[in-house]
Amino acid sequence: MSTAGQVIRCKAAVAWEAGKPLSIEEVEVAPPQKMEVRVKILFTSLCHTDVYFWEAKGQTPVFPRILGHEAAGVVESVGEGVTELQPGDHVLPVFTGECKECAHCKSEESNMCDLLRINTDRGVMLNDGQPRFSCNGKPIYHFVGTSTFSEYTVVHVGCLAKINPDAPLDKVCVLSCGISTGFGATVNVAKPKKGQTVAVFGLGAVGLAAAEGARVSGASKIIGVDRNPARLEAAKKFGVTDFVNPLDHEKPVQQVIAEMYNGGVDRSVECTGNVQAMISAFECVHDGWGVAVLVGVPNKDDAFTTHPMNFLNERTLKGTFFGNYKPRTDLPSELELEKFITHEVAFKDINKAFEYMLKGEGLRCIIKMEA
Amino acid sequence: MSTAGQVIRCKAAVAWEAGKPLSIEEVEVAPPQKMEVRVKILFTSLCHTDVYFWEAKGQTPVFPRILGHEAAGVVESVGEGVTELQPGDHVLPVFTGECKECAHCKSEESNMCDLLRINTDRGVMLNDGQPRFSCNGKPIYHFVGTSTFSEYTVVHVGCLAKINPDAPLDKVCVLSCGISTGFGATVNVAKPKKGQTVAVFGLGAVGLAAAEGARVSGASKIIGVDRNPARLEAAKKFGVTDFVNPLDHEKPVQQVIAEMYNGGVDRSVECTGNVQAMISAFECVHDGWGVAVLVGVPNKDDAFTTHPMNFLNERTLKGTFFGNYKPRTDLPSELELEKFITHEVAFKDINKAFEYMLKGEGLRCIIKMEA
Repeated sequence: MSTAGQVIRCKAAVAWEAGKPLSIEEVEVAPPQKMEVRVKILFTSLCHTDVYFWEAKGQTPVFPRILGHEAAGVVESVGEGVTELQPGDHVLPVFTGECKECAHCKSEESNMCDLLRINTDRGVMLNDGQPRFSCNGKPIYHFVGTSTFSEYTVVHVGCLAKINPDAPLDKVCVLSCGISTGFGATVNVAKPKKGQTVAVFGLGAVGLAAAEGARVSGASKIIGVDRNPARLEAAKKFGVTDFVNPLDHEKPVQQVIAEMYNGGVDRSVECTGNVQAMISAFECVHDGWGVAVLVGVPNKDDAFTTHPMNFLNERTLKGTFFGNYKPRTDLPSELELEKFITHEVAFKDINKAFEYMLKGEGLRCIIKMEA
Repeated sequence: MSTAGQVIRCKAAVAWEAGKPLSIEEVEVAPPQKMEVRVKILFTSLCHTDVYFWEAKGQTPVFPRILGHEAAGVVESVGEGVTELQPGDHVLPVFTGECKECAHCKSEESNMCDLLRINTDRGVMLNDGQPRFSCNGKPIYHFVGTSTFSEYTVVHVGCLAKINPDAPLDKVCVLSCGISTGFGATVNVAKPKKGQTVAVFGLGAVGLAAAEGARVSGASKIIGVDRNPARLEAAKKFGVTDFVNPLDHEKPVQQVIAEMYNGGVDRSVECTGNVQAMISAFECVHDGWGVAVLVGVPNKDDAFTTHPMNFLNERTLKGTFFGNYKPRTDLPSELELEKFITHEVAFKDINKAFEYMLKGEGLRCIIKMEA
């Protein structure tokens, strides 16, 4: 029997308060409104950004909230005006959207949609400024327009990437955020040429995806830069050939890299969000042609500082957001995703996924909604 | 009778001391050694860099010295190993060279030749570490490998661009530095697309050449940013459509530009060397696709500082050197050079050219060696 147009009651993991374990609750999910789609989530994975907003340190706290933004599911029903999707379509919810009509969506160079750009403070839908979730009559807020820690969620159609129905949902779910971000930072933005050297700062999932981008681009050397030597083993699977630990050197790491690699690397990708690492990533690229790409999200009061001569010597610095992918048009499709998936838990055990992340264990933990 | 292989006695304008008027002296010019060429200079123009090193504030002072680096002349004789040039060829001496063999020369992206990159502290030739100039037996030092304030000079073959013998030497001489630098910064590095908006910071000769680059690229608006309103009139000839004077506004000029131009300009080119202008030029480009290019030379202790989120929002910052032109391979040829030439003086009156520059009068002053 169709559930279209009706409120659905289902399970969701609700964050009632900052830093407290999520609580599996029965929630009501309202039908999708204009340009919205209701999606049955089958698999969701945990990204560091979920943990960051769950801890709610230094941002506007929005609670109670349903977190989650890396996921895969199937369309249950569509709201007014939605023509590109229909029930049964396989989709990935994406935290940054593509309206296809603004200057950004029309630009070949940008994916920062004016209408559907990420907004971490907003807990409601654009159409009516209300959430679609409630629990015992109390509204529950959304997270970055996705809220995938729920068996059903409502998403703006512009934040849904339609995918091939043959793609394995338990794997492609990781494309919704970190993996695309890192991979795209290299292949879409840093664009190393075959044979060039690439340094990757930070060997978490995003950095390893950036390394994977360097590997498939044919980089001659991929230098992983991380303070944690335990990360080297996993990194080898992603093409990392050399490892530089800044803690092993007295000189700034950019100087170490310049000395080791003939004046500097051809490309670098910064995936930590630490502003000192950003500066090092920029200053370690070769003069004349070096390109550095910033991916990691900085703190509110950080300042990027360098001598302007480092630019005058023909270095380039760029930043990217979601790997410059337009989510509805061009998500990556050629990735070996299994390598990123190190854990699996049942939905009822979702707090274990948070524990793995907090301990820095593994890369991605898949949360199986139906297990 | 050929002068090849012999010492030539000729007139040169010698800077004996920092900041003192140049003195026209009879000097001896030794024959060219291995990979060197002796050139009869016919026209030279005065660039701000000559004045900067003549004033010798904040750099290593090298005196006595023959300044000058924007010029045009004819090859008088060539040294051992020089096969690309022969007596009679028309050439432009260029302060940054192209050896055609180093990694930079072989890179499509760089023009910062390892062997012949500008060195403002070196007053001697590479081959034997000696100058080719002397005056009454006293050595006179070179300037950036060119020293064109002399009727004859000796230049490394890698710092000579061979030009079409039909090109008017009294005009093309200005291509040796500032004009190519500004024009190339726009057309080779900022690369505005037809219809895009371009802001140019600093409306001196380099900035106006950058505006000219925007004009020939088909920019829809060219916004000149300068603190001197007197510069607007001349700027109109170079395609500048709008004028923003930072002194007319209380807000930072980047904010003014973002508000006036729909979130920011598509491209900006910074031609002042002032680090605050560099920051403004970067922060005034549109998120998603904006590209800012630094051209002006900063002070030794300057720090470029911005919030890293300005990069994360998909802005790009690059620097360029000599407009990314490889001097022997690809100098610009399609420029209306007359517009840049506002004064002419005879060689004996070279100090007048310095006066025009110090008063900020005009753009380029041509110094006629034979007048």
